[in-house]
Amino acid sequence: MKIAITGKGGVGKTTLSGTLACILSQRYKVFAIDADPDMNLASSLGITGPITPISKMKDLIKERTGAESGSSFGEVFKMNPKISDLPESLSINYGNEGNLKLLVMGTIDKGGEGCICPASVLLKALMRNLILKKDEYIILDMEAGIEHLGRKTAEAVDLMIIVVEPGLKSIETAARIKKLASDIGIPKLACVINKVSNEKEENFATQKIKELGLEVIGSIPRDEEVIRSDMEGHPLAKYPDSAAFKSIAKIADIILS
Amino acid sequence: MKIAITGKGGVGKTTLSGTLACILSQRYKVFAIDADPDMNLASSLGITGPITPISKMKDLIKERTGAESGSSFGEVFKMNPKISDLPESLSINYGNEGNLKLLVMGTIDKGGEGCICPASVLLKALMRNLILKKDEYIILDMEAGIEHLGRKTAEAVDLMIIVVEPGLKSIETAARIKKLASDIGIPKLACVINKVSNEKEENFATQKIKELGLEVIGSIPRDEEVIRSDMEGHPLAKYPDSAAFKSIAKIADIILS
Repeated sequence: MKIAITGKGGVGKTTLSGTLACILSQRYKVFAIDADPDMNLASSLGITGPITPISKMKDLIKERTGAESGSSFGEVFKMNPKISDLPESLSINYGNEGNLKLLVMGTIDKGGEGCICPASVLLKALMRNLILKKDEYIILDMEAGIEHLGRKTAEAVDLMIIVVEPGLKSIETAARIKKLASDIGIPKLACVINKVSNEKEENFATQKIKELGLEVIGSIPRDEEVIRSDMEGHPLAKYPDSAAFKSIAKIADIILS
Repeated sequence: MKIAITGKGGVGKTTLSGTLACILSQRYKVFAIDADPDMNLASSLGITGPITPISKMKDLIKERTGAESGSSFGEVFKMNPKISDLPESLSINYGNEGNLKLLVMGTIDKGGEGCICPASVLLKALMRNLILKKDEYIILDMEAGIEHLGRKTAEAVDLMIIVVEPGLKSIETAARIKKLASDIGIPKLACVINKVSNEKEENFATQKIKELGLEVIGSIPRDEEVIRSDMEGHPLAKYPDSAAFKSIAKIADIILS
């Protein structure tokens, strides 16, 4: 199953992605992919070692997409690169007997070097071509906002989860994501409400999501442990007794069922 | 003076941009620009009417950049479009006797239509060519993260403000922004700490920012009024007695001095 985690910037996509990945890897093989050029999925898992991003594999990108990352737009992308051998060469193993692998799309290394479009094309092709076994999960931590839906980076996912928080801005983003996801044929959408301080906020968000015609599959409370784990540089999974972790475990059960 | 507001998604760029714009427009002419394709500067100012975004001006973009938004990358951008007449035709007036104008770069209207690169080029050229009088300010609300620094959208600004919150993720983003902003020659960088709940969090963020060699020009407390104004769809400037508003007013004074 391929799952993309989307939403407005700062709603908690990376925390949800990383924690879901840790929880699912207790029972399944999980392939977590950071698709945000402002990447922090690795650090939110407590990984500090270097990972070769897709965008750094210049020769590979050139061979398989026809363009260099950061090159002029003058080149035409070939849209169906062979990617069958990519995962092993680009990923690192993490915890749980190698059940969790992490891959990163890549970042901007030099101001003015260009956009992340070429790396997005390779990631899109990777997602499209990867055939998963029944006990394998991909979790894509998408970049903030909606540009990735213009690029169709996540077009091949089975489920897109939109994270919202109590407030109109992230609801507006959810509405845009719903419309754009429908354009590119995402088969299933669901919402998770994050950073809920009280019942009034939860009701507000739930009502707004219903008005959009979307389903809520879980709600995560505002939790000091999330801020603490971010300040310490530890994964939230280090605090399995925290309210936020327990809520995400429930969401994992719903996804699996 | 041209000011860009940057930072990780969700740190409060739009709240700071919109509130600063309101405050400065009490004394100066302000041109607020939403440079985020997942745009919500207008709604955070309480504006619901339609604004023609740059990205929608297809003929204009084609004439002035040589490429259509969403077109193939095969066309070559001409990098110095004439933009002297753009602002009036694309902006709307807001409050305070027309002292505050709002312009939006544009969004993704259809999933799969492409990236926002062509609109970014026009905005970059606009920023570079706009000559401001002494009593005029531009406030650019940038997209989340760092891709805009690859595109150099904000290369012509005089000051780039990086918003951080207490946590390593937004500090990591600040470190990336500092490096990339230096690459493209941004003359002045400063940090604002947002969503501060207590002294421990403020000290944590201040220390981390100092380690990056950056200056802190203000700190904004976590404030229920910010969440409330977002849930109501009102600008924070509607609550001038709120702690967050007062902190931003102090930041405005520091910018002006």
